[in-house]
Amino acid sequence: MGARQLHFNLFLLDTGHHEASWRLPGSDPHANLSLAAHQHLARVAEEAKFDSLFLADSPALFGSPERRPSGRIEPTVLLSALAVSTQHIGLIATASTSYNEPFNLARRLASVDHISGGRAGWNIVTTAGDAAARNFGLEGQPLHKTRYERASEFLDVATRLWDSWADDAIVADKDTGVHAVGDRIRPISHVGPHFSVEGPLNLPRSPQGHPLLVQAGSSDDGKEFAARWAEAIFTAQPTLAESQAFYADIKRRVVAAGRNPDHVLVLPGIVPVLGDTEAEARELEAELDRLIAPEYAVAQLAQLLQVDPARLQLDEQLPADIATEDEIEGAKSRYTLVVDWARRDRLTVRELIGRLGGGRGHRTFTGTAVQVADTIQHYFENGAADGFNIMPAVLPSGLEAFTSSVVPILQERGLFRTEYTGVTLRDHYGLPRPANRLDPEAAEVAS
Amino acid sequence: MGARQLHFNLFLLDTGHHEASWRLPGSDPHANLSLAAHQHLARVAEEAKFDSLFLADSPALFGSPERRPSGRIEPTVLLSALAVSTQHIGLIATASTSYNEPFNLARRLASVDHISGGRAGWNIVTTAGDAAARNFGLEGQPLHKTRYERASEFLDVATRLWDSWADDAIVADKDTGVHAVGDRIRPISHVGPHFSVEGPLNLPRSPQGHPLLVQAGSSDDGKEFAARWAEAIFTAQPTLAESQAFYADIKRRVVAAGRNPDHVLVLPGIVPVLGDTEAEARELEAELDRLIAPEYAVAQLAQLLQVDPARLQLDEQLPADIATEDEIEGAKSRYTLVVDWARRDRLTVRELIGRLGGGRGHRTFTGTAVQVADTIQHYFENGAADGFNIMPAVLPSGLEAFTSSVVPILQERGLFRTEYTGVTLRDHYGLPRPANRLDPEAAEVAS
Repeated sequence: MGARQLHFNLFLLDTGHHEASWRLPGSDPHANLSLAAHQHLARVAEEAKFDSLFLADSPALFGSPERRPSGRIEPTVLLSALAVSTQHIGLIATASTSYNEPFNLARRLASVDHISGGRAGWNIVTTAGDAAARNFGLEGQPLHKTRYERASEFLDVATRLWDSWADDAIVADKDTGVHAVGDRIRPISHVGPHFSVEGPLNLPRSPQGHPLLVQAGSSDDGKEFAARWAEAIFTAQPTLAESQAFYADIKRRVVAAGRNPDHVLVLPGIVPVLGDTEAEARELEAELDRLIAPEYAVAQLAQLLQVDPARLQLDEQLPADIATEDEIEGAKSRYTLVVDWARRDRLTVRELIGRLGGGRGHRTFTGTAVQVADTIQHYFENGAADGFNIMPAVLPSGLEAFTSSVVPILQERGLFRTEYTGVTLRDHYGLPRPANRLDPEAAEVAS
Repeated sequence: MGARQLHFNLFLLDTGHHEASWRLPGSDPHANLSLAAHQHLARVAEEAKFDSLFLADSPALFGSPERRPSGRIEPTVLLSALAVSTQHIGLIATASTSYNEPFNLARRLASVDHISGGRAGWNIVTTAGDAAARNFGLEGQPLHKTRYERASEFLDVATRLWDSWADDAIVADKDTGVHAVGDRIRPISHVGPHFSVEGPLNLPRSPQGHPLLVQAGSSDDGKEFAARWAEAIFTAQPTLAESQAFYADIKRRVVAAGRNPDHVLVLPGIVPVLGDTEAEARELEAELDRLIAPEYAVAQLAQLLQVDPARLQLDEQLPADIATEDEIEGAKSRYTLVVDWARRDRLTVRELIGRLGGGRGHRTFTGTAVQVADTIQHYFENGAADGFNIMPAVLPSGLEAFTSSVVPILQERGLFRTEYTGVTLRDHYGLPRPANRLDPEAAEVAS
């Protein structure tokens, strides 16, 4: 192994992370549903040797379809199509533990891993919000704590289903007519508070053993869950100091959970806004902010903060008496991030909306390619990141700008790969293939 | 429109429909998990201008993994990959109404329809058997009647979710910042005995409006369900007379349900076993039957008939006192088919196994290409079929033999297309794009 290397994940969201990205003259406002548009993005990221790309998701119509492209192709379906269109890049699907059955989801993720030759990952979400709950027979979202308890049991079931076929179960002996060795395929016989699942899975163990496990919750429950299960963590951290604190906290929790801290990568999200000069980059950022429809953005902010929209005045600061994190059941860590940010920087609602329109709580790096590369390197070398979740404000132009200008600088500095050296997504991230939990012999070899 | 045309669907199952197909010298015993193998099959079928291909499925490990390839990639995931690898052929996924949530499944199927440009179909199954139930928190399968009640409510919810976006909902007006017209996207607010689903779907209406609806249940409940919902029906009918009776019965029920009988296609399954001479074809059939492992086949038959395997003697007929269709809760129509067949032809258990090994109740057409083409034409022109579900005993060789020898004969006779003339799967089957049920204006135009 050479020097420690950066990791890049491309975070795809509709036509870009900025609310108004679809309105730019060069944007295709239907790109969110276009296979060709996604194939182009995947190929650009693969050409730049990104570790992976990732699709956000929620099983509900999210945000405001009046104001931005909102329809989304289901991630495991879309990633399977992209698996055929690419050869190396990892493919990470967001999927909810609250609104799926473990058997079905474990199988679909393993299916993507088989189809892609070991390039599947799962961004595990518990799905905040009543809109999703009401699509699945509930009147409102389960409690935050309940969602995380279900998620933990879900992961226990899913990982054991993935391990229900030993790696050597299939022998396919034409002479004797034995296709698989019966006792190398085992039920899991799980009975728990949320699920009863007999197993085995109807699919042999996949190339990676388990698809890569990714997670993004930054609440206390979320971080404990990540310490136990996650192998890569997406996080929104608005400053270097906060990224460093988060990084140290996660690695400490991972060690406390008995795991190797090098096997859990921390990837803060950044929104790179690039120009040939810093002034040009700032002008692009301002142009996007001007295209945000304020009444829509206020309604979104009010929903996040669980306040009456009429109480949010564009040119005033947030009301003093809004709820604390403990009082809400939604996306807790995102809530606290936004409120702290507004208070600390004494932002008006209009200014807060501008920041949220770009990165929704993630750090925006605005400047020239060298400036952005310097900042990335500084984070990477100062205990704030193992890599980054790259969130272009506008697609595909924001990705193309990053891969053509920032990536070559980091490659020249020896911080990022110039060729893929492995085959699977786990290879790209430098993470081990997990031993089979149900197979005592395999576990012994791996330990 | 020219003369009435045949329709062909390719029914893909593991390495072929014969239990022993994987053991032939030329077979790839791992083909069931191979993307490349499936791409090859899809391309061969598309080259021959087949209407569609279809993947069987069950959310449980089915049959005996010791004795044949049993792992299966989840159909919506695999078909999405095949959508990228083909341009015309329809792609039909089997999925269960008993073990999915309508929101998730409706969305995945619509996603495949978007990805494929309107080539998705859904083979609707209610999933018999306790093994599947035990993967989803149940101790055993729900009653047959309950499964069909759930299926009907599931279809009602799924079709309304597909219609929750009007076809003209998206305007994407960059100047005004209006992406979609809010009141053209509507919740469905469904509350029923099995599901409560608020909607709308988080995906615009797909190219076909609804993916093509396919169904295969032949019990009384199954036929009533088909008459209400299905647009194509797969069925196992061992003789011409039984096919004719089934065909007439279905068309009558469709009319009684107030639908156009030309909009419901009946596609019996056939297993073509081809040779340059009839003797050569019979020898291939016998070779396959010799490769069946009898103790395994007896166990499978005992499971289907719900009798103790010790009561089935290879060289004797079925016991006289086995259960009637009314007494079982599994796959009722398949049960009756097998028992009737054994009794009528006074088959020993060994002979019955031979027939099941090939077509599992479907008709095997063994002979030369001309003989098989003649039989197909005879069925088609005598009220027994609108087309066929082609079930090669061995893949890919059985498909290649059919497309290279039988299809050209039927094309020369003007019974089967020589080029695709439409774009979507509905175009291939000559079926209309459904009006939007939630949109009074669209419904008026269509009626």
